[in-house]
Amino acid sequence: MGIGNIFKAFQPKDKVFFVLFEKVADNLVKMSQEFHDGMLDFDLNDDSLLKKMSDYEHKLDDLTHEIFVQLGENFITPFDREDINMLASGLDDIADYIYASSKYIFLYKTPDVKEFSEFSLLIHKSCVEIQNAIKHLNGFTNTAEVKESCIKINSFENIADDVLSQGLVRLFETGDAINIIKTKHVLEYLEIVTDKAEDVANTIENIIIKYA
Amino acid sequence: MGIGNIFKAFQPKDKVFFVLFEKVADNLVKMSQEFHDGMLDFDLNDDSLLKKMSDYEHKLDDLTHEIFVQLGENFITPFDREDINMLASGLDDIADYIYASSKYIFLYKTPDVKEFSEFSLLIHKSCVEIQNAIKHLNGFTNTAEVKESCIKINSFENIADDVLSQGLVRLFETGDAINIIKTKHVLEYLEIVTDKAEDVANTIENIIIKYA
Amino acid sequence: MGIGNIFKAFQPKDKVFFVLFEKVADNLVKMSQEFHDGMLDFDLNDDSLLKKMSDYEHKLDDLTHEIFVQLGENFITPFDREDINMLASGLDDIADYIYASSKYIFLYKTPDVKEFSEFSLLIHKSCVEIQNAIKHLNGFTNTAEVKESCIKINSFENIADDVLSQGLVRLFETGDAINIIKTKHVLEYLEIVTDKAEDVANTIENIIIKYA
Repeated sequence: MGIGNIFKAFQPKDKVFFVLFEKVADNLVKMSQEFHDGMLDFDLNDDSLLKKMSDYEHKLDDLTHEIFVQLGENFITPFDREDINMLASGLDDIADYIYASSKYIFLYKTPDVKEFSEFSLLIHKSCVEIQNAIKHLNGFTNTAEVKESCIKINSFENIADDVLSQGLVRLFETGDAINIIKTKHVLEYLEIVTDKAEDVANTIENIIIKYA
Repeated sequence: MGIGNIFKAFQPKDKVFFVLFEKVADNLVKMSQEFHDGMLDFDLNDDSLLKKMSDYEHKLDDLTHEIFVQLGENFITPFDREDINMLASGLDDIADYIYASSKYIFLYKTPDVKEFSEFSLLIHKSCVEIQNAIKHLNGFTNTAEVKESCIKINSFENIADDVLSQGLVRLFETGDAINIIKTKHVLEYLEIVTDKAEDVANTIENIIIKYA
Repeated sequence: MGIGNIFKAFQPKDKVFFVLFEKVADNLVKMSQEFHDGMLDFDLNDDSLLKKMSDYEHKLDDLTHEIFVQLGENFITPFDREDINMLASGLDDIADYIYASSKYIFLYKTPDVKEFSEFSLLIHKSCVEIQNAIKHLNGFTNTAEVKESCIKINSFENIADDVLSQGLVRLFETGDAINIIKTKHVLEYLEIVTDKAEDVANTIENIIIKYA
């Protein structure tokens, strides 16, 4: 048994949750980066973006499932089971709504609007902050850093609110009812992603309040 | 006092919750069966379906209220008060959204689309699995069976996602904006029913994780 | 040190939450009163209403933030931290959706419909009952009064459901797809305010069940 394995064997049981949450966050950062790249280089004829988003969504489902399996097996958890549950579900929701947004962009063949890439940037930035918050949640050693990331996620959600309302105003100016219905649907899904990121930030802040 | 009453007198206080939850589940199975029958034999001129759905919705409200009354009176509960609360609310939501879906079908006089009966079948199947999960939740004697039902409910929700997206694509092909708005509203409500069933499955799975 | 300060010094630490919740409720009553006045005297050219709603929304954000800060500092809380959290978030949601409703009325320049003031009256009445419930929640001395207010809030939400469905039917009769999309959006946001008030009532009822 090498030094690495010895450390692994002594690794506290509850570390498994941080390892899994960090994997989830890493995947969300990559997923949102690829989504943002796709929105910047918008091409409805290339559905490889949709395929990638679907793959990430499944990957996140598997990791979320693994967290729930561990929750069933581990007596020791780093914080309340309900909080682990809520954090895992919240992160999974982010992936679900990024995927759903890209699905409806392709299904509806919505024409590109500048709000798509504005949203995808805010979503990606939020995922980067989630990744940072989760990294520093481990051991509760730097709660100031965690709080800072949560505040940023909240500010991105506020900006997203404005992107949505300005986008809708611009959309209605087209006067094309059917296009309005389709694009409004996509814009609202994109805004929900930032809501879900804010929910995650709130869950993380509540964990900090209870344990830090 | 007969043998039956003696047993009843000794019945643990917490059994009242299982009795009530089973009644709720039985009513959801019947409600969704009648709803599915109505969708298969779609007739906007016969609003007896709407009347039936309204009756079930009130019945479910009464049972949910009874659960909350018992929660206020019983010191002993079979699992956390929060979980009883969440399970009761989740089941009530299913009835609320089945009723709301049927209400808007009649109010809007939406023309029949094949997705209505596809959804109602998925909803009915989900309610049957909820009934099965709740039956086996009693005493935590067969958690494998409970988990199996929860997995099925999750798979029905996944199918419902596809029914919605394919239904919307077909709907937009009609090119009739006002009809699109109405039918989209109904399809989205029907999909929410399966989301609520998934929420109930997740609540049940969490209970299993904590107590089984 | 005067008599007042002596009392203050001996005031239990947990009273700070009731003081803050009462401030939140007072602001919601004022906000909803001004919103209702605006809906009764509907004028899209006077956006002072929107400015007022935005100010109240920020005020509520600050008070909600203060509750979370206190939650992080106080070991003693009058009821579970999760319940304080949920109550604070629920009250904040009410302000958020009143503001969002007024925002979209002005952004979309929706023509006045009678449902706007019907909703704003139900919203204001709900906020008055929330204020009453929170006042009597302090010390759990009059739970009958708290329950009575919660029942009223639930009944207002039921009426709001009907206002929405009847409003939508009337709206579709206009046959103007773009106007339908805009006004439907606003009507649904107004209905969500009453849903959020009902969520608050349910949270309060659950607190009563646990502690009274």
